[in-house]
Amino acid sequence: MPQDAPTHTPGPLLAQIESPADIRALSVEQLPQLCDELRDFIVDIVSVHGGHFGASLGVVELTVALHWAYDTPSDQLVWDVGHQAYGHKILTGRREAFPTNRKYGGLSGFPKRSESEYDTFGVGHASTSISAALGMAKARDLKGTDQKVVAVIGDGSMTGGLAFEGLNNAGATDSDLLVVLNDNRISIDPNVGALHEYLATLSASGKWNALKGEVWELFDKLKGVGGGHLQRLAARVEDGLKAALTPGMLFEAFGFRYIGPVDGHDVVALARQLQRVRKLGGPILLHTLTVKGKGFAPAEADQVKWHAQSSPFDKLTGKSLATPTPAGTKPPKWQDVFGDALIELAEQDDRVVGVTAAMPSGTSLGKMMAEMPDRAFDVGIAEMHAVVFAAGLATQGMRPFCAIYSTFLQRAYDGVVHDVALQDLPVVFCMDRAGVAGADGPTHHGALDVSYMRAVQNMVVAAPMDEQDLRDLLYTALQHDGPFAVRYPRGAATGMALRDGFEAIPIGKGRKIRDGADLAFVTYGSIGQYAVEACERLDADGVRAAHYDLRFVKPIDAALLTEVFGRHTHVITVEDGVRDGGAGSAVVEWASDAGALDGTRVVRLGLPDRFIEHGSQRQLHDEVGIGPDGIVRAARALLGAEAEAA
Amino acid sequence: MPQDAPTHTPGPLLAQIESPADIRALSVEQLPQLCDELRDFIVDIVSVHGGHFGASLGVVELTVALHWAYDTPSDQLVWDVGHQAYGHKILTGRREAFPTNRKYGGLSGFPKRSESEYDTFGVGHASTSISAALGMAKARDLKGTDQKVVAVIGDGSMTGGLAFEGLNNAGATDSDLLVVLNDNRISIDPNVGALHEYLATLSASGKWNALKGEVWELFDKLKGVGGGHLQRLAARVEDGLKAALTPGMLFEAFGFRYIGPVDGHDVVALARQLQRVRKLGGPILLHTLTVKGKGFAPAEADQVKWHAQSSPFDKLTGKSLATPTPAGTKPPKWQDVFGDALIELAEQDDRVVGVTAAMPSGTSLGKMMAEMPDRAFDVGIAEMHAVVFAAGLATQGMRPFCAIYSTFLQRAYDGVVHDVALQDLPVVFCMDRAGVAGADGPTHHGALDVSYMRAVQNMVVAAPMDEQDLRDLLYTALQHDGPFAVRYPRGAATGMALRDGFEAIPIGKGRKIRDGADLAFVTYGSIGQYAVEACERLDADGVRAAHYDLRFVKPIDAALLTEVFGRHTHVITVEDGVRDGGAGSAVVEWASDAGALDGTRVVRLGLPDRFIEHGSQRQLHDEVGIGPDGIVRAARALLGAEAEAA
Repeated sequence: MPQDAPTHTPGPLLAQIESPADIRALSVEQLPQLCDELRDFIVDIVSVHGGHFGASLGVVELTVALHWAYDTPSDQLVWDVGHQAYGHKILTGRREAFPTNRKYGGLSGFPKRSESEYDTFGVGHASTSISAALGMAKARDLKGTDQKVVAVIGDGSMTGGLAFEGLNNAGATDSDLLVVLNDNRISIDPNVGALHEYLATLSASGKWNALKGEVWELFDKLKGVGGGHLQRLAARVEDGLKAALTPGMLFEAFGFRYIGPVDGHDVVALARQLQRVRKLGGPILLHTLTVKGKGFAPAEADQVKWHAQSSPFDKLTGKSLATPTPAGTKPPKWQDVFGDALIELAEQDDRVVGVTAAMPSGTSLGKMMAEMPDRAFDVGIAEMHAVVFAAGLATQGMRPFCAIYSTFLQRAYDGVVHDVALQDLPVVFCMDRAGVAGADGPTHHGALDVSYMRAVQNMVVAAPMDEQDLRDLLYTALQHDGPFAVRYPRGAATGMALRDGFEAIPIGKGRKIRDGADLAFVTYGSIGQYAVEACERLDADGVRAAHYDLRFVKPIDAALLTEVFGRHTHVITVEDGVRDGGAGSAVVEWASDAGALDGTRVVRLGLPDRFIEHGSQRQLHDEVGIGPDGIVRAARALLGAEAEAA
Repeated sequence: MPQDAPTHTPGPLLAQIESPADIRALSVEQLPQLCDELRDFIVDIVSVHGGHFGASLGVVELTVALHWAYDTPSDQLVWDVGHQAYGHKILTGRREAFPTNRKYGGLSGFPKRSESEYDTFGVGHASTSISAALGMAKARDLKGTDQKVVAVIGDGSMTGGLAFEGLNNAGATDSDLLVVLNDNRISIDPNVGALHEYLATLSASGKWNALKGEVWELFDKLKGVGGGHLQRLAARVEDGLKAALTPGMLFEAFGFRYIGPVDGHDVVALARQLQRVRKLGGPILLHTLTVKGKGFAPAEADQVKWHAQSSPFDKLTGKSLATPTPAGTKPPKWQDVFGDALIELAEQDDRVVGVTAAMPSGTSLGKMMAEMPDRAFDVGIAEMHAVVFAAGLATQGMRPFCAIYSTFLQRAYDGVVHDVALQDLPVVFCMDRAGVAGADGPTHHGALDVSYMRAVQNMVVAAPMDEQDLRDLLYTALQHDGPFAVRYPRGAATGMALRDGFEAIPIGKGRKIRDGADLAFVTYGSIGQYAVEACERLDADGVRAAHYDLRFVKPIDAALLTEVFGRHTHVITVEDGVRDGGAGSAVVEWASDAGALDGTRVVRLGLPDRFIEHGSQRQLHDEVGIGPDGIVRAARALLGAEAEAA
């Protein structure tokens, strides 16, 4: 356990729960108390350590009821996304370790197979649970064993196409599989889309339920009416209508037996319901209604704000306990630089529209949605649709800016290639959270985008070293008649003074940050800031390093690299992405093609060929040797090896 | 027009149709004749030139009716996938050019923006049409114009999650958008999944329609029954039920107004229906029932076989006119080598299961589905689900082999990364149609997989040079406890004699094909066969080339490359994929890291950084310089440049 993690005292029942077997030893009447204690424990810990917790508070009862009614870990629980699995972790042997949640070296914020046998499937991205659970169920059927498989999926995740692909496939099989639809009517931001509206219709005691009441009233009355044919006809129609008028007709259409909606906070009823459901076979969808942030008043009142908390807060009032930063001293977030710049561009150019896939807060596209609601679209958790939708907009002369996290754009890679690049459409991919994403860990690191984007024909691939460059690259992208990708990281930019307006950057043009005689750093994107620091530290040693900012890996700046390789025999490339096929690879490709490598040593720094765990961005950069220390070390090693060899 | 294309004579009405405006000049009563002539023309041309046509025959009436009722190209038609757009092409100014369909330099087999203003959105991959059409509709709304937007999507494409993401988003807007569901109950292979079964229920005059009849009969009877309250109640319930019992409840749940099902072959009724629909606003789904291959008896009778035809046939009987190949003389297709090997592996190892996304014929997984129906899964057009489903299977100790075309695996990239590789699960990706795919063109070329797979942590990335190696690599993959990707091309393998059984290949081990003093070819995959030919031709010139087969780009064979770069100062890499980040890039990365490039020139042959059009594989390989001629040319140029420099 990281040493800065204070311990927390669980309530008396929770203190006895070392594994779900201990929950199953409780009577159903004891479950409400366990839920209360679990909820308190989550709030207690998150109020000190931060983390996602709105989702977990919402499923406290569901979590307890599932582990009570199902025989975990033999029965297999798959949590979709996994933001909601804090309770699950605490109840499955990780209570003591839970204060390390999301900390470097500590527990993952998501279910993770390597962490516990209760985490049957690693998650982080949305909408995977039904597909994964169906795979588990089919494997069980092939092996002839009899454990149960349960997927728990939120209504937000249900808007992802993958969830429908899973439903469509599962509903056509006779595999025994329970899908619990955890319907809290929100993902990170409020849900959008027809499905959301449909679920709202189901959930409200609205038209549908009223109609149902009247139907049965009618048939009751008909039983009193004479006439044999009419009565028989009425009986047949009643039977048919019972099937047809189930509120879950959508899911029934997919071949699932629908049960619900049920109150997701009545743990006793829920536990008993799950006990009954466990005895049934075939594909079943249980629709539970829950409240995100349940039981913590500030979180219930502002669900978007309380999706996650990174700084300490008062666990009664929700008031922040972080030391307030004096106004104006805090550098802006990269995402806000993007969000503000996009509004400025949209004000200047009617063609500009914004697209996000359920991340208005995370990408700051929400700013444009607030100011220009007609021109900024949140399409739901549906990255592939976001990209093809943007392609459609672009065919009509619009200039869509798609703000999607680097890691989530993997979901839309085919749209990037087949729908945008192949048609050379002017869609701008604004890849937020590029590089190491921090506490969210390996599911959320944007490690691959340089490699996968650089391969795509027609694509311009760029990254700003500072926020002025981000603004200017967005402007440049708007002037460009083809696809354009720009990546930038999570977190704070430099805080530099920004000039008004925008300046176009010639496409494919990098820049020299400083001259130097002893070696050259060639950096790509914001990680270049570390090289600035490294250069200063090397100066102190009397080593004078040059520093070039590539800015574009496609097209790459041949003139700049001609200078680099003309002047230097020691070159270190630095990037915040995998080395295989990345920015350093682009430099080496160019240099090899140009025959510029004779007598020159190139060291490529970047993410190694393994998945990086969670921690602060700086911790992770340091771990893999692309922080300032690692860069300085690499420079000394390169020059030292040379000196030794000489 | 390529010169080998004979002309064909259209019927008298079709001969007058230079553009859809000419269709709109016809009376509705003339449309059946136009349909007959169009159908004859398609059969006439495909019987000589080959091509996909089952889908196009099925939508002859729909195509004519749409262009008659809608004001194309001002109104915008988006065809999903585009296999069905032959009639559309013929009616939109491309009748004379149509014999060049799918030929090198001729028309594309799919709608393509650069080919015609009537092709509003380039397609090839499934399920994009609703998303693209919604983008077009939103752009129209922003611009305040009033054209109509129509997406035509098959029931097969509707199983792709992207289609649902599109429906979910579109149904929640009030945008004016027509989705025509072309329900022929088959894609390339018969459709699977719950949606398919649901549509079948709608389409048949089955339970649902019977129930509906009984409901209205009941209410008719009730009108004759006395009692004011009962009558009023019955009236209210009747109104409610009319809404609830629409057969398209699934689509109504998504916020679409559902119309149908209607007969997709009654062109007069269909044209009039579309004329009415065109006047309505909002999201509408029109459900049409069609027969794939309609009007050509052999194609109606065997829809899988007649999805596409590559060789000439008798247009009356369907009998092949191709010269039969004597048995045993034809080399096997790569896909069949895969399909047969997988059955052998599955017979030896109970853990082996197969997964395809609606491509049992195309990948030859159909062989295993026939022999071991429990262990081979067709999950529908749902590549992302296929991969996550496979991941779920793998968590339970199964060994899934996912057979997905290289280009379609782009749809599942996030599953490859987030669900398989991150969890280090033993899923084998069998990437068929890798490299240049041929007549299907740029949407179907598998140009990027080396780059996008090589970036992925934990992944083994391999390609066989011949079919013996494919068999052995599949066997090797089965022994490996982690993700494994193997790529192989469309078409015929070498025809070499195959030994019985399998041999494991050490992971990361390439091989030397031959020694040579003057230069070294380092090839990746089946394209290496061209280098064998190139070596022989260079021998005749007195140039002795070495040839190494990489076999793996990840991990790469350091010992082999140490030999290559130790012995050679002229190295030519050859691959059938983009150069950016590809196999040659991997070689150069290794050589740069190893400091092995001093005094050495490396030329990387591969696909250039542009999209390659359609044609035969050999034509396209020659065009981009990776055929035997190009390889020989590159060798001479490399040695010649050296000679000149000396």
